[in-house]
Amino acid sequence: MTNNEYIKQHFPLLSTIDTPADLRRLTLDELPQVCHELRQFMIHELSQNPGHFASSMGAVEIVVALHYVLDTPNDRIVWDVGHQAYAHKILTGRRDLFHMNRKQGGLSGFPNPMESDYDTFIAGHASNSISAALGMSMAAELQHTDRKVVAVIGDASISGGLAFEGLNNASNNKNNLLIILNDNDMSIDRPVGALGKYMTELSTSKGYNNFRYKTYQRLRNRGVIGETGKGIVLRFNNAMKSLLTGQQNIFEGLNIRYFGPFDGHDVKRLVKLLNEVKDMTGPKLLHVHTVKGKGFAPAEADPTTWHAPGKFDEVTGVRAKSRAEYEPLKYQDVFGKTLVELAGRNENIVGITAAMPSGTSMSLMKQAYPARTFDVGISEGHAVTFAGGLAKEGLHPFVAIYSSFLQRAYDHIIHDVSIASLPVTFCIDRAGLVGEDGVTHHGAFDLSYLRCIPGMVIAAPINEHDLRDLMFTSQLSVHHGPFAIRYPRGRGVLVDWHNEMKELPIGKGRCLIDGDAPVAVLSLGHIGNNVSKAVQRVNDSAEKKVAHYDMIYLKPIDEDILSQVASRAKVIITVEDGTASGGLGSAVAEWLTAHACPVRLMRMGLKDEFIDQGTVAQQQQANGIDVDSLVETIKLALNEL
Amino acid sequence: MTNNEYIKQHFPLLSTIDTPADLRRLTLDELPQVCHELRQFMIHELSQNPGHFASSMGAVEIVVALHYVLDTPNDRIVWDVGHQAYAHKILTGRRDLFHMNRKQGGLSGFPNPMESDYDTFIAGHASNSISAALGMSMAAELQHTDRKVVAVIGDASISGGLAFEGLNNASNNKNNLLIILNDNDMSIDRPVGALGKYMTELSTSKGYNNFRYKTYQRLRNRGVIGETGKGIVLRFNNAMKSLLTGQQNIFEGLNIRYFGPFDGHDVKRLVKLLNEVKDMTGPKLLHVHTVKGKGFAPAEADPTTWHAPGKFDEVTGVRAKSRAEYEPLKYQDVFGKTLVELAGRNENIVGITAAMPSGTSMSLMKQAYPARTFDVGISEGHAVTFAGGLAKEGLHPFVAIYSSFLQRAYDHIIHDVSIASLPVTFCIDRAGLVGEDGVTHHGAFDLSYLRCIPGMVIAAPINEHDLRDLMFTSQLSVHHGPFAIRYPRGRGVLVDWHNEMKELPIGKGRCLIDGDAPVAVLSLGHIGNNVSKAVQRVNDSAEKKVAHYDMIYLKPIDEDILSQVASRAKVIITVEDGTASGGLGSAVAEWLTAHACPVRLMRMGLKDEFIDQGTVAQQQQANGIDVDSLVETIKLALNEL
Repeated sequence: MTNNEYIKQHFPLLSTIDTPADLRRLTLDELPQVCHELRQFMIHELSQNPGHFASSMGAVEIVVALHYVLDTPNDRIVWDVGHQAYAHKILTGRRDLFHMNRKQGGLSGFPNPMESDYDTFIAGHASNSISAALGMSMAAELQHTDRKVVAVIGDASISGGLAFEGLNNASNNKNNLLIILNDNDMSIDRPVGALGKYMTELSTSKGYNNFRYKTYQRLRNRGVIGETGKGIVLRFNNAMKSLLTGQQNIFEGLNIRYFGPFDGHDVKRLVKLLNEVKDMTGPKLLHVHTVKGKGFAPAEADPTTWHAPGKFDEVTGVRAKSRAEYEPLKYQDVFGKTLVELAGRNENIVGITAAMPSGTSMSLMKQAYPARTFDVGISEGHAVTFAGGLAKEGLHPFVAIYSSFLQRAYDHIIHDVSIASLPVTFCIDRAGLVGEDGVTHHGAFDLSYLRCIPGMVIAAPINEHDLRDLMFTSQLSVHHGPFAIRYPRGRGVLVDWHNEMKELPIGKGRCLIDGDAPVAVLSLGHIGNNVSKAVQRVNDSAEKKVAHYDMIYLKPIDEDILSQVASRAKVIITVEDGTASGGLGSAVAEWLTAHACPVRLMRMGLKDEFIDQGTVAQQQQANGIDVDSLVETIKLALNEL
Repeated sequence: MTNNEYIKQHFPLLSTIDTPADLRRLTLDELPQVCHELRQFMIHELSQNPGHFASSMGAVEIVVALHYVLDTPNDRIVWDVGHQAYAHKILTGRRDLFHMNRKQGGLSGFPNPMESDYDTFIAGHASNSISAALGMSMAAELQHTDRKVVAVIGDASISGGLAFEGLNNASNNKNNLLIILNDNDMSIDRPVGALGKYMTELSTSKGYNNFRYKTYQRLRNRGVIGETGKGIVLRFNNAMKSLLTGQQNIFEGLNIRYFGPFDGHDVKRLVKLLNEVKDMTGPKLLHVHTVKGKGFAPAEADPTTWHAPGKFDEVTGVRAKSRAEYEPLKYQDVFGKTLVELAGRNENIVGITAAMPSGTSMSLMKQAYPARTFDVGISEGHAVTFAGGLAKEGLHPFVAIYSSFLQRAYDHIIHDVSIASLPVTFCIDRAGLVGEDGVTHHGAFDLSYLRCIPGMVIAAPINEHDLRDLMFTSQLSVHHGPFAIRYPRGRGVLVDWHNEMKELPIGKGRCLIDGDAPVAVLSLGHIGNNVSKAVQRVNDSAEKKVAHYDMIYLKPIDEDILSQVASRAKVIITVEDGTASGGLGSAVAEWLTAHACPVRLMRMGLKDEFIDQGTVAQQQQANGIDVDSLVETIKLALNEL
């Protein structure tokens, strides 16, 4: 049976939907079946080709109802953190490409406007949908275009500062923005913060809110209240609410009409609701409840694990085991275990994560020292400024944030930590190429954006022992000030990761392979493992040997090594798993030109372009930092001399 | 009469207060006089030595009451945007140094922990106080220290996303944080956003809130409600509120106890209130109303102008005129006028500012095209993402934000604008050294943090004509994608600024002074005027002439110029008004080493350290980029050959 036949047979409705226009030709009563088929299709596909699972399973009815009611792509749907949007991709012409989800040359795992007109905005970092949608909505006003703009945002994402800034601005100008709050009471981990509790409270008064909504409809239908005076409706809402409950409504406090909460899995009800609210003037928020992983029992039972479960059996839900006994740990786990170890010795150490306890393995610290561990939710800026406050009082925070998400806290690193030289260790996970998550998730820029900050120490471990030693070094009293340690997604290189920790003197690198050839390679961090292999391969068949230095520290950089290498080499190759503009290569170029060294420098790193999804190996190859490419580069350098 | 005698005579109480302990020895009835003297002292000092005026005048009673009630410096006061904190500086041992406010070697214009133990946290960028204070408060909990921590935040600052993230996290852990909301209904300009309107509404129900507060006190005094169950108190509050008004309380929605609004100029009442709330457990917010510029009629009447009025007559309030007829305009005004001109020709252009319509002169666009101009409040992140949404729909936003504040929007520039290559022009004001505002306000890092972003065009005008031409070029359809134009605080160099705008081809620089000496200077932006003077001075007495190139564009950089210069020069000097790590100098170093040019490069720019307050001239000198230093550097280069 061909794949096409399989799809036709198993997905009789879904297989007829090539665009949302096809969906809109179905009857209301057929929609539950479409939702069912979408879920089965995702289970079938994702069991073989891993991706984000639980979020998209939970958002199926929202996707179907939106495309059914709206005139997409003329109307705009802005997804916040796009891993809820697989059903959207499948309904918008990408069903037959979905097996290429997150693969090189295939589909991005997140909405991407370069991929489809239905994907209206980039959606890899949380909390941006309201601001972006507000911009689109204002554009429609200015262009006198009749267009509906809808932002779909989760309950964790809406707690981010950017989302609040969007909400706070939503009623500032004339616009018809509709916000759908997809509330599943889950981030990747459970959400934190008062807003989360607040939404639970809202939900407990569901009966009241339903009553309020119905009364509002009835009055509107009878012409008692109209559409023009939003203020009147708000006041009506508030008065009703105040009369009947003791509850505060934050959204209405911000002049946004609130409706909900409703059952986000009742697709026919959702269609009705959307039809009712879509033409209302002014910003409004529809609060719906969904279940993460809905429709697949194992995922409903453990949505954190099923956020991105890897391969699994589509019938039993048994997940494929990827780790053999002898495989190294993930860097993040070495980080987590080491932090617990250090915290046991140094009572000033505290841990901070921004909604990523499992993703960063800060969860280990949380288990061991709950009172000394803070998950601040999707609030990277707050995480860093809060760390500044803790550090000011003598504590030593370890802040674990993914490299690309740390971009959200850039000013906070400078203003709230670095100016006063506060002792904060930034443990920058997912630094460098991240593979399947693609363009929005690469940790490409950290070396550049951190290197210009005065007093910032920047280091990268080549293996698990160095990670541990750097963490150890960062909290020694010999050092006072911010200290950044960047390490990649995925596994380390040592099976026996647990060394006795020791200080790695700040600003000192090491020679890994000594050599007498006029070519030397300097590398920073885990990518140095590729370099070592490449250098060894070249040296195996060469008379004069190429040297390889692991710089360990980007800042301060080891000038002894630079001086030594520059005196011997005619060509220096720098290799880093980050943009080639502003990081290791640039630091070496600055030093060489300051000393007028007649040396050619080949800066190997990420090209000056955004890098799409694929495997890390494919991405390394495309950027010339895989072992084979590095061998070629080293040979080229040797031959040119 | 000596200054000391003058102070003793005119400020009989204030002159006895060397530390807050002295203040605490006074009676409650003496405090209004202290407040009066503080105001007169500030008027006297600031009339001669310009600084921020209106904010600090409005916060006098808050300062006095806090230091009277709290045991500072053991208790911590965290000021949000420190220009409200002059009275705090004066009361905490810095009265006699206050004439050195904002001067080199004198006092920072903002709280600075390196300056005084009473300044607990850096406070140059808005909205950070709640997060920092929360960190301090949690530290006190972990360290079992009995310490009160108070954040004082204005109504404009509290609308920033970071402040919201702080509020959202405030009730997450055990802490006793007190937030004082200093509500003067003014940012530098009037505040925007729903939160602003919301606070006005809160204030209109002042009578009710007062009643509620009194009832609460009474019940507590009688033991009807206790301190332990915060939830009970909140529910009590909410129930009261719901019963009596139709109003929503956002803060209590976030589990923060709300008290207010109260008169922020009634110092005796404030003392009483603080005594009542300071020992309450859990996070709480005290909302007080103040008048910006309070106590000086001209400032009360026009607080925007009197935010930082320059010198003035302390009796009449007549401000010193600083601009003679023949002086060039400020860059920001050239920007504002040019934007209006361009908007008249290109209807897709819209303008965005983040709470800085006067500071950036976006106010001119607002006057001319109100519907096409957006002031989003202190929300730099939202400003940029919102711009992304507008640009996605075909509009061309010009986003004007100060360089150091744009750090808040770093991820938004990358994720929400650059990945999708959206056409947004970033007009980066206050780039480079800013003088008196000091360490938190220098635009030191933009060239570095922007250069690593793929597809970003980065330019800097050497004069007003180039600013206009760059703005013009950025909105031409030949270019599609983000375009950054950075220009400094202060005046340009041309009296006749209004040229006929023309395209400046992207990636092309120009030769300003041709030369045959083996030394060439490359500069970027306004600092090139210093370079031209220096080169001319050197050339006047030299046989072989030093060349000077204005690169105009940092990215893409003009490789023709680099190739030409590298073939002739033995020494290249780069000059930029930004950090020397990662900007122009680094780009040139990268190119030279990639081509193995045996050239010595001297990178002149800001040193790798944070730079304190002073005049721009002093700061340029300290960093070797004033005319005299540049002359020395060029001569040094010539002599070394």
